[in-house]
This record gives sequence, structure tokens and C-alpha cells, in this order.
Amino acid sequence: MEKIEIKDMYKYLNQEIDTYLLVTKKELKEGKNDRYIRLNFADKTGNISGNIWNNALSMMDGYGEHDVVKVRAAVNSFKEQTQLNIKKIRKAEPNEYEMSDFIQTTKKEVNVMIDELFVFINSINDEFIKKLLLSIFDDKETLLKFSGCPAAKNWHHNYVGGLLEHTLSVVKICDFASKEYPVNRDILVAGAIVHDFGKIFEYTAPPILDFTDSGRLIGHLILGDEFITKKANEINLFPPNTLMKLRHLIASHHGEMEKGAVKIPQTIEAIVLHFADNLDAQTMGVHQLIEAANDPNARWTEYDKLNNRYIYLG
Amino acid sequence: MEKIEIKDMYKYLNQEIDTYLLVTKKELKEGKNDRYIRLNFADKTGNISGNIWNNALSMMDGYGEHDVVKVRAAVNSFKEQTQLNIKKIRKAEPNEYEMSDFIQTTKKEVNVMIDELFVFINSINDEFIKKLLLSIFDDKETLLKFSGCPAAKNWHHNYVGGLLEHTLSVVKICDFASKEYPVNRDILVAGAIVHDFGKIFEYTAPPILDFTDSGRLIGHLILGDEFITKKANEINLFPPNTLMKLRHLIASHHGEMEKGAVKIPQTIEAIVLHFADNLDAQTMGVHQLIEAANDPNARWTEYDKLNNRYIYLG
Amino acid sequence: MEKIEIKDMYKYLNQEIDTYLLVTKKELKEGKNDRYIRLNFADKTGNISGNIWNNALSMMDGYGEHDVVKVRAAVNSFKEQTQLNIKKIRKAEPNEYEMSDFIQTTKKEVNVMIDELFVFINSINDEFIKKLLLSIFDDKETLLKFSGCPAAKNWHHNYVGGLLEHTLSVVKICDFASKEYPVNRDILVAGAIVHDFGKIFEYTAPPILDFTDSGRLIGHLILGDEFITKKANEINLFPPNTLMKLRHLIASHHGEMEKGAVKIPQTIEAIVLHFADNLDAQTMGVHQLIEAANDPNARWTEYDKLNNRYIYLG
Amino acid sequence: MEKIEIKDMYKYLNQEIDTYLLVTKKELKEGKNDRYIRLNFADKTGNISGNIWNNALSMMDGYGEHDVVKVRAAVNSFKEQTQLNIKKIRKAEPNEYEMSDFIQTTKKEVNVMIDELFVFINSINDEFIKKLLLSIFDDKETLLKFSGCPAAKNWHHNYVGGLLEHTLSVVKICDFASKEYPVNRDILVAGAIVHDFGKIFEYTAPPILDFTDSGRLIGHLILGDEFITKKANEINLFPPNTLMKLRHLIASHHGEMEKGAVKIPQTIEAIVLHFADNLDAQTMGVHQLIEAANDPNARWTEYDKLNNRYIYLG
Amino acid sequence: MEKIEIKDMYKYLNQEIDTYLLVTKKELKEGKNDRYIRLNFADKTGNISGNIWNNALSMMDGYGEHDVVKVRAAVNSFKEQTQLNIKKIRKAEPNEYEMSDFIQTTKKEVNVMIDELFVFINSINDEFIKKLLLSIFDDKETLLKFSGCPAAKNWHHNYVGGLLEHTLSVVKICDFASKEYPVNRDILVAGAIVHDFGKIFEYTAPPILDFTDSGRLIGHLILGDEFITKKANEINLFPPNTLMKLRHLIASHHGEMEKGAVKIPQTIEAIVLHFADNLDAQTMGVHQLIEAANDPNARWTEYDKLNNRYIYLG
Amino acid sequence: MEKIEIKDMYKYLNQEIDTYLLVTKKELKEGKNDRYIRLNFADKTGNISGNIWNNALSMMDGYGEHDVVKVRAAVNSFKEQTQLNIKKIRKAEPNEYEMSDFIQTTKKEVNVMIDELFVFINSINDEFIKKLLLSIFDDKETLLKFSGCPAAKNWHHNYVGGLLEHTLSVVKICDFASKEYPVNRDILVAGAIVHDFGKIFEYTAPPILDFTDSGRLIGHLILGDEFITKKANEINLFPPNTLMKLRHLIASHHGEMEKGAVKIPQTIEAIVLHFADNLDAQTMGVHQLIEAANDPNARWTEYDKLNNRYIYLG
Repeated sequence: MEKIEIKDMYKYLNQEIDTYLLVTKKELKEGKNDRYIRLNFADKTGNISGNIWNNALSMMDGYGEHDVVKVRAAVNSFKEQTQLNIKKIRKAEPNEYEMSDFIQTTKKEVNVMIDELFVFINSINDEFIKKLLLSIFDDKETLLKFSGCPAAKNWHHNYVGGLLEHTLSVVKICDFASKEYPVNRDILVAGAIVHDFGKIFEYTAPPILDFTDSGRLIGHLILGDEFITKKANEINLFPPNTLMKLRHLIASHHGEMEKGAVKIPQTIEAIVLHFADNLDAQTMGVHQLIEAANDPNARWTEYDKLNNRYIYLG
Repeated sequence: MEKIEIKDMYKYLNQEIDTYLLVTKKELKEGKNDRYIRLNFADKTGNISGNIWNNALSMMDGYGEHDVVKVRAAVNSFKEQTQLNIKKIRKAEPNEYEMSDFIQTTKKEVNVMIDELFVFINSINDEFIKKLLLSIFDDKETLLKFSGCPAAKNWHHNYVGGLLEHTLSVVKICDFASKEYPVNRDILVAGAIVHDFGKIFEYTAPPILDFTDSGRLIGHLILGDEFITKKANEINLFPPNTLMKLRHLIASHHGEMEKGAVKIPQTIEAIVLHFADNLDAQTMGVHQLIEAANDPNARWTEYDKLNNRYIYLG
Repeated sequence: MEKIEIKDMYKYLNQEIDTYLLVTKKELKEGKNDRYIRLNFADKTGNISGNIWNNALSMMDGYGEHDVVKVRAAVNSFKEQTQLNIKKIRKAEPNEYEMSDFIQTTKKEVNVMIDELFVFINSINDEFIKKLLLSIFDDKETLLKFSGCPAAKNWHHNYVGGLLEHTLSVVKICDFASKEYPVNRDILVAGAIVHDFGKIFEYTAPPILDFTDSGRLIGHLILGDEFITKKANEINLFPPNTLMKLRHLIASHHGEMEKGAVKIPQTIEAIVLHFADNLDAQTMGVHQLIEAANDPNARWTEYDKLNNRYIYLG
Repeated sequence: MEKIEIKDMYKYLNQEIDTYLLVTKKELKEGKNDRYIRLNFADKTGNISGNIWNNALSMMDGYGEHDVVKVRAAVNSFKEQTQLNIKKIRKAEPNEYEMSDFIQTTKKEVNVMIDELFVFINSINDEFIKKLLLSIFDDKETLLKFSGCPAAKNWHHNYVGGLLEHTLSVVKICDFASKEYPVNRDILVAGAIVHDFGKIFEYTAPPILDFTDSGRLIGHLILGDEFITKKANEINLFPPNTLMKLRHLIASHHGEMEKGAVKIPQTIEAIVLHFADNLDAQTMGVHQLIEAANDPNARWTEYDKLNNRYIYLG
Repeated sequence: MEKIEIKDMYKYLNQEIDTYLLVTKKELKEGKNDRYIRLNFADKTGNISGNIWNNALSMMDGYGEHDVVKVRAAVNSFKEQTQLNIKKIRKAEPNEYEMSDFIQTTKKEVNVMIDELFVFINSINDEFIKKLLLSIFDDKETLLKFSGCPAAKNWHHNYVGGLLEHTLSVVKICDFASKEYPVNRDILVAGAIVHDFGKIFEYTAPPILDFTDSGRLIGHLILGDEFITKKANEINLFPPNTLMKLRHLIASHHGEMEKGAVKIPQTIEAIVLHFADNLDAQTMGVHQLIEAANDPNARWTEYDKLNNRYIYLG
Repeated sequence: MEKIEIKDMYKYLNQEIDTYLLVTKKELKEGKNDRYIRLNFADKTGNISGNIWNNALSMMDGYGEHDVVKVRAAVNSFKEQTQLNIKKIRKAEPNEYEMSDFIQTTKKEVNVMIDELFVFINSINDEFIKKLLLSIFDDKETLLKFSGCPAAKNWHHNYVGGLLEHTLSVVKICDFASKEYPVNRDILVAGAIVHDFGKIFEYTAPPILDFTDSGRLIGHLILGDEFITKKANEINLFPPNTLMKLRHLIASHHGEMEKGAVKIPQTIEAIVLHFADNLDAQTMGVHQLIEAANDPNARWTEYDKLNNRYIYLG
């Protein structure tokens, strides 16, 4: 059986389909006459919701959030959304699907990127800073979380591995800038490496891409700061001034308070990091828009609502 | 000898005065022909700067930052500022002055305020939260720092004890609100107590009121969050959800990102705390403006540049 | 027969239902081939529109705006809206329905609130101010309008009695604040009582909640100011300075010009009133969001578009 | 004796001058050792302050606010301001000065402008509106106040007669626009005539140009609305819809809430009035800047701080 | 056969219609199972899209963009849009339709407006400026483009002839203003004539109203400036200062940078032009809203999303 | 004789000095009793103004704008400014001074930078683009203007050679980015080379750094666009699409309309260029602040008013 991608489901409006989907949320709800099940699904092309209106209680078991399921469903339109009216559902067997069909992932090689990251870590001269970074990334579990994390939910790098990919790009720009401007390269490169580290606490683990509660309530700036500070404090005699500067880079990398910075950049390294972060995030955001415009004849992308523009492809 | 208050010094323009001043900064600078000493002074009525142009090297010793000094100086005007040209300077003897003439201090009784604070702490039902607060405020040194700290540098409560005074007022408003609205009183009152706690790290210790380096680079939101989180983690089984909510109250109490909030309020307690904080800060800011208008015939205060208005006294 | 609540009608998509509804608008329109009737309905759970496409002229009579009607209708979806295609309609008999099912109303006791309001009025020491307030609220018709008025159309307290409920809460906060801050309590409490009074002219009378024309074109600030000024001018020797201060509280209570204030707050009472108003409005707005999240398992409310956030329930 | 204009006084720095000045404020203040008198002066070229440091009590009598005085004074510089240190002061005799040297006045003929205004009033077809306008402007005292009032304190038309001059220009633009666009000319022209009428309550009477207390606390929008509404209510059967539209024109003529509009324009007449008002105010503001650049060789005006620009004269 | 206007098509939901439409875009797309044709249509009442799902390849020929076609189609609703499912399509014969039914056009006489424009051109005293304008508008092809161009895509004057109509209105206001204010009338009137000239490069030629690529990427300010500058440079000895001022009027007529001005107005003529432009654009925008409210009983227009308001019709 | 640098002149307050200065402006003004000469001076450390109060007419000759003069002057303070009261003035002989003392100049080697620029030009593959750039920079006079031009008046790179230095840095960042992102390197690098080219028309020629009239009224975006377009149009068959993209890079490189962009970036190259431009400008701006903090003990720079911050040096 063919899998139908979520982005194409609108083409089956008012038809019945059989396909595979990843369950991202499952709730039993009180309906007017009866209970029903509300489900959220995802695959690597998008999200869709669905309902089981009849015999909800008897259809609650055998599958759950994080499972890939096989469903038979009618495709409906409700409010402005395509929606599934689910008739049958069961957990899929591992051999029925490829997990990679359900998770959007970086197109780059994760291992190669990790190697590159370590080359940068090892290029740092300040022994304390290097020790701090190694104490973080030498931990297998942390590295796994880091390299599996997205860099955003909606805009640029919003896929598994996106955080690693984005981090590495920002590091490269900062490394380049450190040759052009009179900055402290060790502080700048280390700051680039950890600037978004808190995102491993801000997003849920794959395969489901969403905010954690503490991600929404506290955010990656504070959560990253907390972790880095704890790690530095575990290192004997870690210089307080160095730690303060690194923390400032995390606190200020969004550049302006209305963009979420706790402090505006107040060191030259913080300035460079902020603009390097912006350069990569915006360029890749636009690149993703361009890639999504898969019609070879199109002269403009779809409308970019966030920035009120189309991107020219001609 | 009479002390001349800094706010009155402009009246001695082009005259020579003898008076007492608190040294808040002392620097040896390279002048054109020779070195000179640049000094910043304060008393409880304001700040002024001065220079020692001649024989700087021989006049560097015997006094320093944090000392009260006796000076003979000519009052000059440079650029838009009144400034002192210092002829003589020496450290004052303890019996020559009252320290309270050099430090602006809350007009309320510090001990009474501390007692009131503890009444609120003890009114909390949640044992973990109460334990957390006691672990913080039972520490003598912390309590001393807290009760000696200002709540701001320029605007409301910018004096020794201001942080305690402001905190207590916000707590009272939140306590009142907890009777009017369906909130978790324990979380709300505790959040009010610690919302500005990080200011003990953001400001220098009395008698000098200024920002610390980490205050400027990292700020009281993160520094307060760090301390509270550390203290909670020292308590066995402290509920993570409770801690997350408290941290959210600290992170969001400025209300809007452009006003410095890391996150906008996302719990009902965070909403109440933000507006309680604003109510006290703005009301007391205006109250200080009104008090400064000491002319009984004045119908309006001086211009409030921060808010583009005069306050009506009539 | 069971009444189907408007908020549940989407569940009957493409079905035919029989139910009761309040008519809030009735218009005869020119269609392409024929005339049709366009109707707006409400009940205490929301609003919905409907059309009578056939035999419009013969179905125009016997019911009108402000009536509760019994309808038979097909539930359709047009553009992003659920909509009724009406087959039958007639005015309902008084014994068929409870008016309270069609009007969203404060959950508090109106009489108790009125009593509380009078306690505050009578607590005012300034005889002129007290006389002014009594001259307003002793009028039965005015009191009826006031206590039946909502405080907003969409956000907080958007139900019958909401204005009274909101006013009383703001008064209580101001009363509390008058013990904490050096304010003129009489001016402040009176200002709180009348700050939104103009809303009785800004909104239509129940059961229909909408803006009046003068509400949209002139607004409750000016309309309230006009009424209070007229009432004060009817009192012999009412002190002009007192009246000016009360008018300033009305004119400035929105706090900032971009939020609709005619003047920014320029007295300490105006500052307190503004933040008290905000505290109650925002807290109750969030409280209504939380109440609307009636799923006991939900960890977050629905998205709050006005403020770009979810509210945490966990 | 020659009068020295205030704008030229900086040329007499550290010299002693004899000249005539209008007293706009006189206060007896508590100095350090003694009382002193603080005075504000004006002439048609600007404002300056001065002090009487010695023998203040003996120099308090014989002159007051609104008087022209003869002074002998030393010209000093304090902070960034030129200031007078007054040695002698006495009320000037009527034959010593021309009042017109102390008050900045429109360059147009007031009587001609009044005649033009009446031509517009009489051109209105709607009998109620015409009656309303005549009931206002036929009152000699009101007309005198109106024609002696400035239209602003700092920016455009900030001189005696400025309100009449500005009003007439806006009326002319609206009259012109009424031929180009499908508007209700009577409403539009009447709205233009009264749009800033409240300024007669917002500014003090000549010769002193300042805000009144109610001007600052309530503002010309509400004060004007109050007056017009009262006058309309005195006319038997004045149509409520007409009054509502006129009031909307007053309430909305600033165009945007952050510019002080109570309501944004919601009728086509309100749109036209707003832009006509802006066109005249901005053009005349720039014209005054250009006139102030009295150097025939200058290619650019002084910096226009309000709008961050120079105006090109070349 | 009757033509069904696009604005009425929603009334035929789920029915099949025969009608005429202008093709504005035609694309062959890759569908899931097969290719399909996506079409955009327009008439003078609006836009609609449609698809040919079956036998796409065989239905590609015989018609194209800019053609009027006859279609048979089912009217569907997809997402929030009415959409056509096309069954038959063929190019319409010239005698089947009036082109004017497909293009929204100014209601004024184009020839009369052109004559008026030339009267203004000939009223200019400066020989260089007059020569410049004649060199532009005496060119038949340019004049044709100019008089066929809209002044906007969505808001005011968004129809064929709109640019000419808007230009002429702005010229008239400027001409009027030149009698009221001390401006250089030649510069002002000429600036008004050419201020939006670049729109002939910014919009596609009728019958299709859309942006050109260079309109989106470079914009009418620069494109207009380029053309006018080129034309002036072709005139022997054209005074550089005159050209600079004209170019400034084009560069600054949007008034504020966030509204798209390259420079803010820095001459009095630029100020007048900016507000004249605004006056006409906003008034006509509102006028179009009012005209669109074709229900004679309506007291308010539809919601004006751009400005967050309804317009009062009562 | 020693030259006294302008930044040190405040140290000579109320003294008389002899020194050399560059005249940047000379005006004969009407004083109260007599004419006087107003002069503006510069050297590489700043600007100062001065007046010749006596015998102005006899001291007008023998020197002018762009000349270095020898002056004897008293150093005064007027308003918040240090100012010179000039007693003697004469044109300096060439052998009395080094021109380089009067002009702030890039610290990098101009010839080396030019060579680097040409390497980038020659690295471009697209023959048309390369031809365009060579046609511009092969012109000796243009190259001289370009390499002598500042990149700003107040903020970053505000010195002779600053434009070349800034351009080269932006080119390098773009060249680096072209390896990291899927961009058209030829378009991007060429756009970087010409993005600020119009500044050669926006600033006056050395030694005086100021805006030209057309710089203020039209600006470097349009002036640069005009020049590049003219040059491209001189090349036979220059591809219009390539030119349009280059023009878009110039028009959009400020990124946001409120920062002066005519269009927001709508190609991926425009995004990269904007952030590269920002990265260099902000980093160098901060670097200049840091350099200006020449006290080796300072922990913070002077206040950066433009961005409301100090920069940390510790």
C-alpha cells in the first residue's frame, strides 16, 4: 500500500483513504451525545487532525502517541482545515513503514557535522572554555539530544538535526568573522556553539516536534544559561569573567528585547554572534521557502506571511 | 562645618566650598601635560564629578572609593554639568559625618518590613514553597543584602531598602488579589516575594548605588532565576511543576518582551504579578516625583521625561 | 425538545436540526434571482448567522429582532463559518424557553454587587462627590442600565452584569491601594466607580450585545465624561477642581494614547486607577480563557490570539 | 532706550543690559541662605528666566504676572540656558512700550479672517448646523477668545490668532475638497470650523501662552466636544444624528489614537477633515521653520528636532 | 446567455454554471495521479480560481492568458474560497462579450481628464519644467500607458484609469494649496503630475492588474525617478537644482520611511505633496468602501481590515 | 609650534591658544551691532566652531573653506559647547602642517584594499557583470572618489577610505556566505561591491565630511541605482534580469523600510547582503567605540546613545 503524504490529502476531499500516520496527540473528549477520540497526526510533510466519532471507547487501545498507525478515514473539510473522519485504526508493524517518512530531517550528514563541531571545539585555545565544551558534548546522551533537536518549530531549520546544522553554520560564520575583526575568538566560537543549546530543553524529543512546558514558560535562553552555568561551576577555578561573557552571549543573541533578548549585545563578540545567527537563520528560512516552491516554472515563491513578501525565483 | 548638599551646589557656581562627599569612583587619567585624578561623588541628594588637575600623583593616597572625604573645591560649570575643581581632599574621620547623609534610604522601618515579609512567608500552605523561601531568607547574609538593596537605579524605590519596600508592597497587592481571583495563592505570593530577588546581584552594595557587571550583562531575571532554582534543587523532592511555575513568574513579570520579559505571562498568577508589580512601581515613581516637588505653591511637578508629562499637584 | 447550543452546532454539519435561538438582526436582502432574509442569532454560548432563501417575503412576519424563535434549519458550512439554512421559523412561546439560555450573564449576584457598590459610595467623605454618585445611582433606570451592561464586547466581562462586576472589582483594588499609597481616596474610589460608566451608552441594551452608533463614533470616554459633567453641574457649588480631577480619571484610565486614553495619567490617582483597571481586566480575561478550557485533562488553554499565547493550566 | 529681543540676549553674555520684558511667572522661592524670586519672561521672540537673589522680599511688589517690566540684569549662562541675574525691576509705563513687541501675533488681518469665517458659516445649507455655529460665534466674548487663541504651544500657529488662522485654512481646504469628493459639505465645513474649538479652553488667554490645567488634564477634544454639545442641546430639535457626526469629527480629527484621536475617522468627512488638518498644520510648521532661517545665504534651515530633518531652502 | 459576475458566484455553490471569464493566469501542474490545469480568472467584480482535473493535456489549447473564455463549471468551496471545477472551456468570440465587463475602469471620462492634465501642464511658468512634462506626455504611447494604468492593486483607484484620476486629483489639491501657501507652484504641480508616474512600470498592462517583477523588486519610486531623470537629461541645460527638487518630491511623497518613502519630505513642496496624496488616496479608498456597501439600508460598511474600522453610512 | 587636537581643547577653557585647524565652513553673519564671521573647523579628532566678533570685514580674506589656517583664539564655553573666540587667523603654509592631521583616514592600506577589490571583480564568472564592474572601477576618477569616500557621517567607518574598507569587508562576508548557501555568487558579490556605491554622491569630497544636497534629498540608494543602471545600459545586451537583480540588491540592502530600504529583500542574495552589511557595520561601529575608550583601566566604554548601552571591555 502506498502512503499518502499529508500535504496531498486535500486532493482526496470527500473520499476514503488508507494510509500510515504518526500519532502526535491522542485525547478522549466529551461529545454531545457520546465520547469521541481526537487525534493529531504528522508525517514529514505536515500535520493533520482527525476524530473517531463512533465507539470511541472500544477504539482507544493498542496504539498511542509516538506510534505510527494504519488508518482508514474519510477526508473532510471543517472550518478552514482538511480533517480525517477515522473509521479504522491500528498500530503499524515495524516492517510496514520507514520512520524517516514521518520525521523531517536535515539533509546533511549528522556524523560529519558532529566531527566538524569537534574540530571547532578543539581549535579553542582557552583551556577552561575547551574543557567546558568537552564536558558538555563528550556526554553521549547530551550529544544525541543535541543532534536530534530542531532549531525552530515553524521557521528555519524546523527538522531533526536542525539545531546541529544551524549551530555549525553560525560557528563557521563566527570563525570567519574572528579573522576579520578584533574579537576574542575563543569566547565567540564557544558562544556560537552554545547559543541555542537550551533548545534541547525547549523542544520535545523526536519524532514529535513541539514545545515542552518549560520551553514555553521559561524558554531556551534561561534553560541554556542554567545548563552551561552548572557545567562551568563543575570545573575547578573556571574564570568567572569568562563565564559571565559566555552567559551574556546566550542572554543577548536575539539582539533586541522585542525579539526576545534578555539583554542587548554589550560586547563585540555578542554583536558578531547576533548578526551571524540572523544571517544563517534568515538565509536558511528563505532557502526553505525556495525549496518548497517546487514548480520549475514558478517565478515567485508562495507568500511569506511572516515577512510580508514573496521571494523572487526568476 | 556645614555639609553642602549636592543638589544645592549649583548655587555656589564660581565660588570655593568646603564640604563632605562620598567617593564613588576614583581614576588616574592621562591629561595633556600631566596626569590628573577624576572623581565621582555622591550624597543622598545626588551625584557630582570632580577633578584634581595639579599634583595628581601626590594626592592619590589616603582615601578611596566608598570613603567619605572632606574636600575644598571650586564649583565650576563644564558642558551642561556642575563640576568640582578640587584643591584639597582627605578622608573624613568617622565622627565628622553621619553615613546616613550620604545614602538615600527607605523611610519605612526595615525591621518592621522584614517581620511583615516573614508573616507572608509563614502564611504559605505549600510546605515545599515555604521551605524554599525560608531557606533563602533565614540566611542572615542574604537577608542583609536583600534589605539593603535598591529596587532601581533611577526610577522608583532607588534607595537602600527600596527592594524590600517594593517587594512587600507587591506581595500585599498579590495577597489582596488572591482573595478576589481564582489563583493559586501560594505560587502567587511566593512569586511576588522572589520576583525581583536577582536585584541583589544586579546592584552594587551600599553605599554606592550602581550596576554590577553581571547586572548589566546578564540581568536580575536570569540571576534571580539561577539562585531560586539552585535553592529549590537543594530541597529534597521539590516538585518540578511548582518550580517551573515560580521560574515562569520571575521570567515573565516585566509583562512584555520589549519591557524586558523573557516570556510573556502565561499563567493567571503571572498576569496578576505583572500588574501588581506595575501598580506599585508606577505609583511609587509618581509619588517620588510629587515628594520632590517641595514647593508648597507648585501646581505641577517637574517634567517627568521618562513618561513625557507633568504630574498635577493642585 | 432539547435546545442545541450554538457552540455545538458544528457537530450537526450537513444535518437538519430543530432548536431555539435569539434573533439579533433581521434583514431583507436582494439576491440574484430573488429576495432572501439574512438573520443573526445568538444564545449564551455564541453567535451564528442564517438565511431564508425561499419564499422570503412570506416568512418575514411574526418575529423580529430581540425575539426568541424556534427554527428548523440545515447546518451548512460557508467560507470559514458554520451557517444555518432555515426552513421554518416562528416566534417561540414564553413557556418554551428560559431567557437566561440566550444571554450570557455574570455569575455573581447582581443585588449583592449593587449593595457593595453603595457601601463604597457611602464611604466617601467628600459630600460633593458622594452627592454626585448618589444622584447617578439613586436613579432606578440608570442603575438598571448600569447593572445590565457588559464591560466589553469580546474580551473580559463580555456579558450582562459585566460592567457592574468589573467596576466593583476595580473599586476594591483602588480602595485597597488607598490604604497603601498617599492618594485622595474619595477621588480615587469615585473615579473607579465612574471610569467605565459611559459604556451604558456604548453598548446596546440586553439581550443583544453590540456597539451603539455613538459608541463606535464617540466612545465611552467622552459619553461618560459628558454624563458625569452634566450631573456634577446640576449640583450647586460642585468644586470645579474636584470635577476636573474626576474627568481626568475618566479621560486617562486607558493609560496610553495608543490604547485609547485621551490623556495619559497625570495625577497619582489616575496612575492607580489605570493599573487597577488593567489588573482586573487582564486577570478576568485570562480567567475566562481558563474557564473555557473545560477539558479536565488539558494542560494549556486554546490560543489567545489577542496576546499571542496559550495559558498554562498544568 | 532700545528693547533687546530675547532671541539676541545670548550676545550679551556676561554683560549688563537694560530692557523691557513681559512677566509670565513670578515665584518667591526658598534659597539656601535666603529667599529669592524666580521670574519667567517673554517677548515675541522667545522666553527667558531670571532670578532676583538679593533683597527678594523688598523687590516683590509693584509688578506681577502679565505686566511688562523694565529690568537691569546681568546675562548669565546656567546649565544650557541663558539666564538673567536681575538687579533692578519696575513695572513699565504704558507709553514706554508697544504690547505688540511682547506677543507673537498672526500676520494676517484678524477682522478679514473673521469675515471670511462668517461667509463660510452662512454658506451652510442645513439650518440646524448654521444656527449652531451662529449661536457660538455671534457671541462677542466667545469670538474674542477664539480669535485671540493660538493653535499650538510649540509647533505650527503658536501665536495669537493662530487658531483662527489655522481654522480658516482647514475650512478652505475642506470647502475645496467638498467639490471634489462626494461628502456632506455642511457637516464637513462645520466640523472644520469647530474641530479645534476646545483650544480656547486648553490655552491661557494672551498675553501669556501656556496650557490651562484642564487643557493638560482633559484636553481640547473633550472640552470642545462638551461646548459644542451643550450649544446644540440648547437648539430645539437639533437632529441627534447630525450632532453625533459633528462630535465624531472633533473626536477623530487627530486621525490615529497614538496622535491623540479618541476614535479613528469612521466617516468620509472625518477622513477629509483629518488630512486637511494635517496638510495645514505641517505646511505652516515648515513655513515657520523657513521664515526663522533669516540668513539669505542659508541653504538649509536649522534642525527640525520634532521630525529629524533640515528643510532645504536652496 | 447571461454573464454571472464573480462576486455573485458563491450563490451557485454546488451548482453548475455557464459564464464568461477573463483568463489572468494559466498553468499546467503535476497532480498526484495526473497533470491538471490551474487557472485564474477575473471580471470587473473580482477574481476566482479554477481547475481542470481531467484530460488536462487535451484542454490546454485554443485560449490563453488575456483571453475571455466561455466556461461550464461546478462551483465548489475549498478552504475559505469559492472555486470553479471546470468542465468545458473555449475562447469566446468577440461578439459574445463586452471587454468592459471584465475590466474595472474609472467612471470619469479619460479624455476630459487628459485635457485637464494638459491645462495644468501648460499653466507652468518655468519653461524647463513645462518642456520636461510635455516631452513625457506628448508621447502617445506613454500617455496611453499612463491613462490605462491603475493607481494601486488593492486599495484606492485600483482600476484602469485610476492613476490618471488620482494624479489629477492630487494636482488639483496642490494647485489649490499653491494659492494658500508660499510654495513654488511650478515645482509643486509638476511634482504632483509625476509623483506616481513610475506606476506605469510597476503594474502590468490591462486587462490584467498585477505587479511586474521590477515593480516588486525595484518599485515605482525608483522606476519613476529613473524615467523622469532620463527625460530631464535629454533637455539641454535643464537646471540641476530643479531636477533635484523634482526627484526629491518623487522620493519623499510617501512621507515616512516605514510607508515606503526613500527620504522624508525636506522641502515645503514635498510636505504639501505628501499630504495632498494622502488626502486623495484615503478619501477615495473610503469612498470605494462606501460604494461597495450597496445595501441602501446598511448603516455601516463592511469591515475595513486595513484600517480596523467600519465606515458609518447613517 | 605644537598642534592642539580638537578633542583636547576643553582643557584650555578660558585660556588663549595658538594652533592649526581646517576650515569647513565660513559665513559672514549679521550681528546686533555689527557683522561677525562664523567658522566651523575640523581636524582628525573632531569638530569645533568659532567666531570673529571684531573687525569681521577686515578679516574675511586670505583663507577659505578647505584651507588649513593658523589661529589664535580664546577657548570659551557657550551653551553646552566648547567654542573659539578668534583673535587672529591666517592661511597656513603647506610646510607648516601635515594634511593627514586634519582628516580621519582608514588605518588600512588603500592600495592593498583596491587590489583585493579587483581580485573579487575578476573572480566573477558572468561576463556581463564583470564588464559592468570593470567599466566602473577602471575609471581612475571614479576609483579615486570611491576610495576617498567615508561610509557614514557619524557611526561606523566615518573616515576617508571608510567606504572602500566597508565595501571590501561586506564582499568578503558575502564571498564566504556564497560557499555556505545556495546563492548566485556573481550577483551576490557584485551586489556587495556596489551596494553603497551611491555614497560617493551622498558625501562631499575630502577633506570635508558632510552630506551633499542631493545626498540629503535623494540619497545614496537612488543615486547609486542611477549610476549603476546607466553603466549597465552602456553595455550592449546587458541582460535585463541580471540588472534588475543587482538593482534590487541596492534598493533592499537596508533590510527594512523603516531603516531606509526602498524594498525589503526578496531574493536570497538580498537577504545575505543585508545581514552581511549589518554584521560589518555594527561590528565596526562597536570596534570604533572600543578604540575610543583609550583608558586602559576602563571596564566599560562611553555610553552609546544610538543603541542605549555601554560596551563591556573587561
